[in-house]
Amino acid sequence: MPHPSRLSIHQVTLLEQCSTPQFIDALVRNGVPCTSLWREKVQAYGVEKTAKLIADSGIALSGYCWGGLVTSTDRLEAARARDEVRRALDEAAAVKAPCLIFVAGGVDPRDKSIADARARALDGVADLIPHARSVDVKIALEPLHPMICATRSVLSTVKLANAWCDQLAAEDIVGIAVDTYAVWWDPDIAAEIARAGRRICSFHVSDWLADTQDLRLDRGMMGDGVIDLPALRRMVEAAGYDRYVEVEIFSSRNWWKRDPDDVIGVIKERFRTAV
Amino acid sequence: MPHPSRLSIHQVTLLEQCSTPQFIDALVRNGVPCTSLWREKVQAYGVEKTAKLIADSGIALSGYCWGGLVTSTDRLEAARARDEVRRALDEAAAVKAPCLIFVAGGVDPRDKSIADARARALDGVADLIPHARSVDVKIALEPLHPMICATRSVLSTVKLANAWCDQLAAEDIVGIAVDTYAVWWDPDIAAEIARAGRRICSFHVSDWLADTQDLRLDRGMMGDGVIDLPALRRMVEAAGYDRYVEVEIFSSRNWWKRDPDDVIGVIKERFRTAV
Repeated sequence: MPHPSRLSIHQVTLLEQCSTPQFIDALVRNGVPCTSLWREKVQAYGVEKTAKLIADSGIALSGYCWGGLVTSTDRLEAARARDEVRRALDEAAAVKAPCLIFVAGGVDPRDKSIADARARALDGVADLIPHARSVDVKIALEPLHPMICATRSVLSTVKLANAWCDQLAAEDIVGIAVDTYAVWWDPDIAAEIARAGRRICSFHVSDWLADTQDLRLDRGMMGDGVIDLPALRRMVEAAGYDRYVEVEIFSSRNWWKRDPDDVIGVIKERFRTAV
Repeated sequence: MPHPSRLSIHQVTLLEQCSTPQFIDALVRNGVPCTSLWREKVQAYGVEKTAKLIADSGIALSGYCWGGLVTSTDRLEAARARDEVRRALDEAAAVKAPCLIFVAGGVDPRDKSIADARARALDGVADLIPHARSVDVKIALEPLHPMICATRSVLSTVKLANAWCDQLAAEDIVGIAVDTYAVWWDPDIAAEIARAGRRICSFHVSDWLADTQDLRLDRGMMGDGVIDLPALRRMVEAAGYDRYVEVEIFSSRNWWKRDPDDVIGVIKERFRTAV
């Protein structure tokens, strides 16, 4: 088990139950030391107000989620998408998050070329580096599950994230977010996590339910599925990652319907027994 | 476009509309030269009766689908599963199919170890080789999409299938089935198809819908999704594969609800324009 001081609960885990102030209150009330904020919620409450709330609460931030979708074949659309990511980086800096979770974007139905979408995503990241440096917020490349490759992320494996990092040569400002739900199935995961090493700047846990019913919103609580979470945690730790372990559960049919204190209680127990 | 003589329509594509005799009739009526049979349907009609029907119809077979699920941690369960695959191989031989599609099996919730499940699956294939040789039916290792890794197939990539083939050293009787729907997202696909070469003994097409709503039963008609099917077809052809192109569409919300002749008509048109 990871030390309890490493627990971060991602805001999306209580997306449906709590406004941002209610969410921060729940974390404080339950002694949770850290969170990662969900951009839509932050914008709804206001970036400056959220920044003040976080600062006053003493809660640490492990990330800001998310920016990206830069794979459009249309130059103007792609430029607008990169501008939107720059605004997300500014917001991450305002709330003092160390990194922005970067979601590459999907395949453009207009060209149906996954190779070209990947090339455009990589170009997009390169273009964003100066701004990320200027606000001192890391771009955390997050490989997402191949089942959402078409619409959300052509970055499907840690191997590909490593290849992009090799090409970008910007280790100071571009890192990799490893999400157990997205990568657990990958036959190459052990080797690629080891290769990623200090690039890993964010680590997310949730579980894969055997009876998964949705491509995005049916993640399981740690221990309720088939992922060997302790094995993956040990891999990222062996690679040099010793920071927060973020619990990030999108769950429209279960956890989003429950009382916030109950959900946090289960998370704290499973953090001890199943991570 | 592939030559029309290479068209095979998998029985599952008309799973809900047709009994086996109705399905074969529809193929003959529409001049479709080849099919791959769905085991449940064959068993429902009878193996010997199906064999006679196929022989009389002049329809060729590109495969028999499927056998596998050999990853149980329980020795007795695993032995029973392998016996079931042997029966499937016998049936494939009876209907004169060249190969049996092999679906590895998922992670056993009792050990939650994907690495061990992969090792057991590989052992299972090795154990089945003598029987496959005795009935002269190839075992077609089919990597399935990572989204069904937990329950159906820990064989998630063509790279892993190639690694298993390297270890098995039985190229005469163990091959690889490449299904575009399962592998299109893979950053390594071009290299691994080239590496697979003559191992490729079966090639399946369908499309990935941008608004996919189910993990197994929402495949799209070729041309309706985001997969660059001609690019993948050219890859397998460059690797040496020149046999049938199987159209395999699981579609509970669309194609399974349509008239068989209409579905076949659309398939024939898309085979020309989108494959």
